Amino acid sequence: MLVDTQDLTAFCADIFRGAGVPAEVAGVVADSLVYADLRGVGSHGVLRTEIYLRRAAEGMVDPHAEVRIERDGGSTLLVDGSNNFGAWVGVVAVDHAIARAKQTGACVVGVRRSNHFGTAAYFVERAIRQGCAAMVMSNASQTMAVTGGMTPFVGTNPVAFGFPTGREAPFILDMATSVVAKGKILAKAKLGGSIPEGWAIDVDGNPTTDAQAAVAGTVLPLGGAKGSGLSMVIDILSGVLTGAGYGPSIKSMYDNWEEPQDVGHFMLVVDIDRFLPLSAFTDRLADYIDTLKRQPRAPGVDEILHAGEPEFRLQSAASASGLDLPDPLVADLKSMGARYGLRWPEG
Amino acid sequence: MLVDTQDLTAFCADIFRGAGVPAEVAGVVADSLVYADLRGVGSHGVLRTEIYLRRAAEGMVDPHAEVRIERDGGSTLLVDGSNNFGAWVGVVAVDHAIARAKQTGACVVGVRRSNHFGTAAYFVERAIRQGCAAMVMSNASQTMAVTGGMTPFVGTNPVAFGFPTGREAPFILDMATSVVAKGKILAKAKLGGSIPEGWAIDVDGNPTTDAQAAVAGTVLPLGGAKGSGLSMVIDILSGVLTGAGYGPSIKSMYDNWEEPQDVGHFMLVVDIDRFLPLSAFTDRLADYIDTLKRQPRAPGVDEILHAGEPEFRLQSAASASGLDLPDPLVADLKSMGARYGLRWPEG
Repeated sequence: MLVDTQDLTAFCADIFRGAGVPAEVAGVVADSLVYADLRGVGSHGVLRTEIYLRRAAEGMVDPHAEVRIERDGGSTLLVDGSNNFGAWVGVVAVDHAIARAKQTGACVVGVRRSNHFGTAAYFVERAIRQGCAAMVMSNASQTMAVTGGMTPFVGTNPVAFGFPTGREAPFILDMATSVVAKGKILAKAKLGGSIPEGWAIDVDGNPTTDAQAAVAGTVLPLGGAKGSGLSMVIDILSGVLTGAGYGPSIKSMYDNWEEPQDVGHFMLVVDIDRFLPLSAFTDRLADYIDTLKRQPRAPGVDEILHAGEPEFRLQSAASASGLDLPDPLVADLKSMGARYGLRWPEG
Repeated sequence: MLVDTQDLTAFCADIFRGAGVPAEVAGVVADSLVYADLRGVGSHGVLRTEIYLRRAAEGMVDPHAEVRIERDGGSTLLVDGSNNFGAWVGVVAVDHAIARAKQTGACVVGVRRSNHFGTAAYFVERAIRQGCAAMVMSNASQTMAVTGGMTPFVGTNPVAFGFPTGREAPFILDMATSVVAKGKILAKAKLGGSIPEGWAIDVDGNPTTDAQAAVAGTVLPLGGAKGSGLSMVIDILSGVLTGAGYGPSIKSMYDNWEEPQDVGHFMLVVDIDRFLPLSAFTDRLADYIDTLKRQPRAPGVDEILHAGEPEFRLQSAASASGLDLPDPLVADLKSMGARYGLRWPEG
């Protein structure tokens, strides 16, 4: 059953508002979740409504707290997320970074005391719309082993980069630093299958191709020591530098109900105009993309896509036709809405 | 036969000076090459002396050209490398970035009209020594296929990140965006061995585990679409944004003797003090590293090392004992030196 995405966004925002979240915060959080669903990243979509609400209900997130600039270094800002929702904190932070980059050319924002912020692409896209290039990172609670270790030390810390292309689809690379999402390993395990070498280690720290053993074990960083190092770089920039948690000191959104998560983010926004006129940049990037698409293609490949293009196509299609959410998720959303007297938007 | 590293640096600098390179430029280029050798990255070491000299002799590099700031946006600088040696261009650029970051908190430098700059860690380390965090990228001529392609589209574009640790070994992640260096595949092919899946494709664009077929084919990005996207991000920031070459428009250092390479670089330097006092940062990072080292270790692992630590240990050992260069390379260096009446530094 397809649901209109604007209706869905309004419905989710109304749930958050019903739970006492200020309208502006509720609107951004709902919008960021639906954005992820539209782009095919359901794991970061409206599925998260329930856990976000529970965090707020248990006092682990404060939707009323003011996100504020704690230190202003000119082209650097240290932002105190004040333990508000990560998506809201991220939006406030990236908007500050964009405004500042328009003044000084570039701005680096470090954020502490934040929470799970959803998909990093959401913040990158705000910068792109203002003619900026952006890099956005976040650390996360421990789920991934690093090279040499056998238990989780870092999160599958994501990093996203984005650029305006002058075309409909922006160039957005948004990637976790794990080889694959744990969800993929879970899916393989359910089917009783095996996984490629390098995806995970078992509980004893040995490489495994047994999906069941991998589920009990730990997911690995992409590209061995390179991804392992990159995940730690993200932890250092997002956490060590900002005063947020890092490594073991970031609390799990699901398992820790005693303390706020203390997630950290790190963002760089660059005003493209300081290097060359935006139109010259998008002309050059369009040429780059066209050249990419003219490359000889590997067997079975119909078209070479740039980063963010598959997601943009999904987003466009779902925006037009409506979003196809799994039935159990719709049932959950309906029952959450019912608490606040909200009617699920039909067809 | 071990050679003292200071003697080697002086010898290489004297070769460059003999070839007409200004002393300051010669010193930096030689120092950057020896730095790579010291850190176990011989592929970017004094081995390159010959090709660098040939590029200059053929007029493809201009060691006398002034590296200059072309546009100044406050916290952004566009630097014209003026086709000088990449290492020299990189040093001028990163030093500008450091100075500016000390004023405004952070500085982004884009560089065009540069050349192969050696190991990115070299520039990152200069920023670290000034209490800064740094990110340094460069594009390079085409050697790697991107996801969906079957022939080289990008270079194995490197990115490096670095932080001061308050200890001897800085945290420096310096990585190419390929799964492995082509040299590793060549080594496997020489031994008649196979390679793991995912390292390369054959000339027809099919995945291969045959090292011979891989040598004839193309090396792949790390982590599939993630590394592929990352290599293009580096190309866009270093080339598209700066006005340098990108993709096919970067000339090969080895194969193109008609035009300068037009390599681009992209650097971010952040003054750590704008976020927290440097000593607080290094205390936190030291805690992070100590926590890392206390993690349960995978079977066969004696110690978990942070990025840059293996390279630092090699560097310290070689600085103390002297550097062990392969005999054929020593012979080449001796013969290059002989052209300028230079004596190889004995033991």
